[in-house]
Amino acid sequence: MKNYFIAKSRRVRSTPYTSRIENQGLTAYTVYNHMLLPAAFGSLEDSYHHLKENVQVWDVAGERQVEISGKGSAKLIQLMTCRDLSKSKVGRCYYCPIIDDKAGLINDPIILKLDEQRWWISIADSDVILFAKGLAIGNKLDVRIFEPNVDILAVQGPKSFKLMEKIFGTKITEMKFFNFNYFEFAGAKHLIAKSGWSKQGGYEIFVENTESGLTLYDKLFEVGKEFNVKPGCPNLIERIESALLSYGNDIDNNDNPLECGLDKYVNLDTDVNFLGKEKLKEVKKKGITRKLMGVIIEAKEINLSKSIDLTNDKNSKIGELRSAAYSPYFKKVIGIAMLDKPYWEVSQTFKISINDNIFEGKVCDLPFI
Amino acid sequence: MKNYFIAKSRRVRSTPYTSRIENQGLTAYTVYNHMLLPAAFGSLEDSYHHLKENVQVWDVAGERQVEISGKGSAKLIQLMTCRDLSKSKVGRCYYCPIIDDKAGLINDPIILKLDEQRWWISIADSDVILFAKGLAIGNKLDVRIFEPNVDILAVQGPKSFKLMEKIFGTKITEMKFFNFNYFEFAGAKHLIAKSGWSKQGGYEIFVENTESGLTLYDKLFEVGKEFNVKPGCPNLIERIESALLSYGNDIDNNDNPLECGLDKYVNLDTDVNFLGKEKLKEVKKKGITRKLMGVIIEAKEINLSKSIDLTNDKNSKIGELRSAAYSPYFKKVIGIAMLDKPYWEVSQTFKISINDNIFEGKVCDLPFI
Repeated sequence: MKNYFIAKSRRVRSTPYTSRIENQGLTAYTVYNHMLLPAAFGSLEDSYHHLKENVQVWDVAGERQVEISGKGSAKLIQLMTCRDLSKSKVGRCYYCPIIDDKAGLINDPIILKLDEQRWWISIADSDVILFAKGLAIGNKLDVRIFEPNVDILAVQGPKSFKLMEKIFGTKITEMKFFNFNYFEFAGAKHLIAKSGWSKQGGYEIFVENTESGLTLYDKLFEVGKEFNVKPGCPNLIERIESALLSYGNDIDNNDNPLECGLDKYVNLDTDVNFLGKEKLKEVKKKGITRKLMGVIIEAKEINLSKSIDLTNDKNSKIGELRSAAYSPYFKKVIGIAMLDKPYWEVSQTFKISINDNIFEGKVCDLPFI
Repeated sequence: MKNYFIAKSRRVRSTPYTSRIENQGLTAYTVYNHMLLPAAFGSLEDSYHHLKENVQVWDVAGERQVEISGKGSAKLIQLMTCRDLSKSKVGRCYYCPIIDDKAGLINDPIILKLDEQRWWISIADSDVILFAKGLAIGNKLDVRIFEPNVDILAVQGPKSFKLMEKIFGTKITEMKFFNFNYFEFAGAKHLIAKSGWSKQGGYEIFVENTESGLTLYDKLFEVGKEFNVKPGCPNLIERIESALLSYGNDIDNNDNPLECGLDKYVNLDTDVNFLGKEKLKEVKKKGITRKLMGVIIEAKEINLSKSIDLTNDKNSKIGELRSAAYSPYFKKVIGIAMLDKPYWEVSQTFKISINDNIFEGKVCDLPFI
């Protein structure tokens, strides 16, 4: 696949760390929430191995926050997600599918409860702020909605705990998964969550004070030398192996959460009021007609830039591959695909055309590892 | 400025024409509405000269449509824009600032009135569909909102009229600016508007039938040979000279339409109900405190990827440059900047630092040409 450059402009926002990552060997970008998101520092496979064994610092400022505060904030947040947040606690992160009135997915953020009347929606790639504003205006809710000046630094990988402990003390290692707290550094308080878009463990630092954040960035690389720290970014291979879904890639507005295996975040047997609830009840009663599954393909290489059809022996389409990468662990191509009923059973075989060659594949459970 | 590659994925959607433009010499992309938008075919300056003298075909599928239909559609459309659409006519295009309840700009699309109860919002780069859905749900409006399968091909440049006439007949040259109609080609009907994101004249073809659109694409290049047709894309130099504002670059959610010189699209003295109306009345009464203006800088080169401060003799910030390019016409750098009161007067001088060199500049009216 030939490579093309990315054209920069103010519309595709830089982050406070852009000049640093470019000096550190960045090779490719993607665009996420109208912002530059690093996509490669040289070899994807080298970065994958490094992430699974060491520690990386990621400029993921593209994961923007939508702040919702005020008397109507809890009501608005609940209206947007099918996950029951009535017992949610301050200091916790919640993975929440956001859906519209037709139960189509709009985003799949982590929601942070900062206070009883103050929330951050840490979004995937769609303008959730516009949905929230529209709903709030239409429903006349007493809320304030804006995008705060927050640029996330993620510290990911098995050695992230030791690195962060050296800077922030044992309190940060003792923190539980998907909890967050505030930590001092260089004259500023940073919200840090034990979270991140890899399954290798780590933290997300929600930097509000840019100057302190830049000092922290440099400190992470200075202290991290002994842990072999490197700059990185969400890794396609690792995130597929771990089945971390990517909104826009694996799931989109044409899918509902039950089709995407998000059943445990769909709370239909509660009193809470959210958009698409009746639609989801209907879907659940009738049963879904397609399902997101893992696939393993007998190929050594793939560069996916759009869905690729999966066909059966009769050359009928039985599904579509949405994300894929060569996995050094399986020594095959693995991917995430939407399979039509009844072809989503584990071990279902299929054919796929990659660069005009036909390969065999089969369906499997998610996650891979 | 070093160049970086763009990482492709399903999330950053390809268009039906992606493989064609890549074969035709595309060198750089940007991302627009979660889709690949061509940003360069080699030299920006060569493309600028070519556009002003000949005809280009642009893959601008990234200009997505939001279709709104149903009994409540006119009400919803009017709610979103400060332009009075009460006398709008079927078959016409309307440039409409979309604003929120605080009068902050959300988008600046062309709205096409397809029917009394059916509209297309041809959007700049933000998820207007989510704002529309939120508003419709909150206000319980009887509407259907979705993104139709429409991929725009723009035919731009002074020779676009002759080229299009050869394919569609004189009816297309007789059509007035910002009007649209339906034209047959290869077994499909295409909505074609006399519009486009250049001031060199031309058309936008709203392709719904992809197969026919691909045939049309090839036909445009075949018939266009005699007019020296080339593939192209919105040209930074040409669009700044013409003062075609770019949402996300020149204007964003922190700006209101009066600050952006969009006064003629702000209809406050009418009975129509739209969001932000009271706020805009207030702004108008008090007067704006900053204003979007043109600037000319005594420099020969610029690569802008974020705002650059403009300062006065006392080194105080008096504004920020948001878009800029070297103009072969003026033989200087020209740009679009937001100037603070009272520094927005024509001929106001300023200083600007570009790549650590200080240049002189002055404020001027828009458009440049």
